[in-house]
Amino acid sequence: MSTSTATAAPAPANAAAALDPAVGEVIEAYVSTFNETDPARRRATIARAWVPAARYRDPVMAGDGHDGLDAMLAGLQARFPGFVLKRTSKVDCHNGSVRFAWSLGPASGPSVVEGVDFCALAPDGRLQSVVGFFDKVPG
Amino acid sequence: MSTSTATAAPAPANAAAALDPAVGEVIEAYVSTFNETDPARRRATIARAWVPAARYRDPVMAGDGHDGLDAMLAGLQARFPGFVLKRTSKVDCHNGSVRFAWSLGPASGPSVVEGVDFCALAPDGRLQSVVGFFDKVPG
Repeated sequence: MSTSTATAAPAPANAAAALDPAVGEVIEAYVSTFNETDPARRRATIARAWVPAARYRDPVMAGDGHDGLDAMLAGLQARFPGFVLKRTSKVDCHNGSVRFAWSLGPASGPSVVEGVDFCALAPDGRLQSVVGFFDKVPG
Repeated sequence: MSTSTATAAPAPANAAAALDPAVGEVIEAYVSTFNETDPARRRATIARAWVPAARYRDPVMAGDGHDGLDAMLAGLQARFPGFVLKRTSKVDCHNGSVRFAWSLGPASGPSVVEGVDFCALAPDGRLQSVVGFFDKVPG
């Protein structure tokens, strides 16, 4: 919608609300944690993205707390060196819940895994829980 | 995978696990709650699908508890008589989390709204939380 025209009409209930920039920054930090291979920077980024009582689950990985997430991500990076996580959709957010689509694979070339993350935000705006579902897996 | 051939090899990590029939039944009951217009039957179906501490959120509706869900659904049915909720994807489940796609609209003809529900299961297997996101809304 244009922001240059003021109108007295309320936005329709189905209007796409502008994303809170703070939510966008948290999701950007979260995506960065998958790609940051420097241990100190990865830890710092985890702390920006997640509350301490963090919980990540997807069909093949799990991590709890900053330590658990860091170990999970270090393991992923060691197993698939050079793989990059990319957000492939807008960040869709309402009522403290977030979803977005992503792909994982070499920086150039086709993705290896694709999916959607469904996230719950904590009161302070950081991630409390992320549940990933896969839409494309290796055949 | 064929179930008629036993093998000693474990399933690959990315193998699609068979859906727990109990999860399928809960999701079927949940979908039915949107379409059941008889108040007593709708209430009974809500109780089969949801724990008492139920929480539903989508971009335009919210409901908490069996009473809140029942009021929400009665309101939806009153506003859009004849609309039917249909599940349009498989039920994808891991670690107590569920997702599936759905459409809402007249029983015949194109859908009006489409989206995805992300669900958290309670320990007893019923729904604790459903967060819906929209992929198609009226223009």
